[in-house]
Amino acid sequence: MKIAQYYTNNQICLGLIQDNQLFPGNFQGDMIDFIKSSRKIKSSGNPIPIDLVRFAPCLSHPSKIIGIGLNYKDHIQESSGQLPEFPLIFAKFPESLTGHRTRIIWNGSLTEKVDFEAELAVIIGKELKDCPEDSVMEGIFGYTCANDVSARDLQFGDGQWVRGKSLDTFCPLGPWIVTADEIPDPHNLTIKSLLNGKVMQDSNTSYMLFKLPQLISFLSSNFRLVPGDVILTGTPHGVGSFRDPSIYMKDGDKIEVEIELVGRLENYCQILGQEEK
Amino acid sequence: MKIAQYYTNNQICLGLIQDNQLFPGNFQGDMIDFIKSSRKIKSSGNPIPIDLVRFAPCLSHPSKIIGIGLNYKDHIQESSGQLPEFPLIFAKFPESLTGHRTRIIWNGSLTEKVDFEAELAVIIGKELKDCPEDSVMEGIFGYTCANDVSARDLQFGDGQWVRGKSLDTFCPLGPWIVTADEIPDPHNLTIKSLLNGKVMQDSNTSYMLFKLPQLISFLSSNFRLVPGDVILTGTPHGVGSFRDPSIYMKDGDKIEVEIELVGRLENYCQILGQEEK
Repeated sequence: MKIAQYYTNNQICLGLIQDNQLFPGNFQGDMIDFIKSSRKIKSSGNPIPIDLVRFAPCLSHPSKIIGIGLNYKDHIQESSGQLPEFPLIFAKFPESLTGHRTRIIWNGSLTEKVDFEAELAVIIGKELKDCPEDSVMEGIFGYTCANDVSARDLQFGDGQWVRGKSLDTFCPLGPWIVTADEIPDPHNLTIKSLLNGKVMQDSNTSYMLFKLPQLISFLSSNFRLVPGDVILTGTPHGVGSFRDPSIYMKDGDKIEVEIELVGRLENYCQILGQEEK
Repeated sequence: MKIAQYYTNNQICLGLIQDNQLFPGNFQGDMIDFIKSSRKIKSSGNPIPIDLVRFAPCLSHPSKIIGIGLNYKDHIQESSGQLPEFPLIFAKFPESLTGHRTRIIWNGSLTEKVDFEAELAVIIGKELKDCPEDSVMEGIFGYTCANDVSARDLQFGDGQWVRGKSLDTFCPLGPWIVTADEIPDPHNLTIKSLLNGKVMQDSNTSYMLFKLPQLISFLSSNFRLVPGDVILTGTPHGVGSFRDPSIYMKDGDKIEVEIELVGRLENYCQILGQEEK
């Protein structure tokens, strides 16, 4: 099942994706309500062509957005990092969420180095605490595409990454969630980012250093995971800031994250306040 | 007004604190619902002596818990830090919240260096985005005591602080919220921590480097603040890890955070799994 959050009269509704159309669902509530429910939904009403849907982030108000640093072997190499012994955890604040085909917006006086990171996002389905590795997969509700947008000057200037990764709109998530039953092997998916149509990252989730059972078991040994929590599982080789010369996103840029069997998440960049400089 | 979250039959209810008693309130909903409402509450029912109340954290499910590093001049000195040019932001995950008189619990195989940090917590009352300094104070709903419990080995080992500061129960918050109208000057309050009754930190909020208007205006220039967001405004001199010799909390320890006009937050330490070592 592919299930999306979209807006009807500024209200968030759930819809089912099929054949390039969105079928309004008969579930009352948002995605996290659905995850916590018995998960029954049927289409009701006329389908909307996907191109006309106003997508919300595929999830609103998660308790946590957990980022994982340095989790692709090829990305560790480009960033001159050492192989970590255990997953490196950081946070993004939930107000950073935005949906498919929305704008990523920042103030040009706040940051000049905004980078993209294509990531497979895992959506947690039930409470997990001290979860053994072999029970992790049944705790996953589904998967979606994430762009872990990062203001590199703030991220590395602060040392603590949360601010540079949490500006409003810096966590595009979507277009929809693909439920776990539709992804036979989440560790064998091509993952790409494209900047203005040009492929920037082109890798495979098989290059993850900490695979989902190990990663999520580790997280759950530190803190409770709860339904709707989002785990960004790290980005592969090819982000803008580690290129020579570095590439940062500009006003008007189109940035896409594409993951096999999951979908393609598309956003546009807008810089505010450039006229003041 | 002093307003608390407490448990009745494992349901969270709101109550009003007066004369060492809790008066059940007639509001349907939790603290964040109350903050977002027109904020009308009256006592209804018989008062409970405070000693018998089972306190919840004074707030559940905030969107963000924002920590501020190095915000007291005396603490910057002890940690050999340079005066920061702007506030240093970190995150605590909401699952770390716990209430007054509960246990702070950790696994002895995960961390051996658990420290306390007394902090004045600000509770945000309305959405703030790019908020000018002179409008900040009207956006504050109230204040409470926080203990920014920190596993120093995880915090400094990871580099990113969020894991070491987000273990479940590592954010005691309470006992109650004192609404902003009852605190004439939040920058002139004594703030203390006591470990097993012995004063460990003894300072005053006047030593904050970034006072609330500047601090919260800065935060809001980076991301939206929303009702119920918690801002931990930094800790003063005297935490355990920077002492010589260092002091870390042990099984059975009692730790208290006391802030003038606000209250006294009391918790007990429990270490799991020590027998396995």
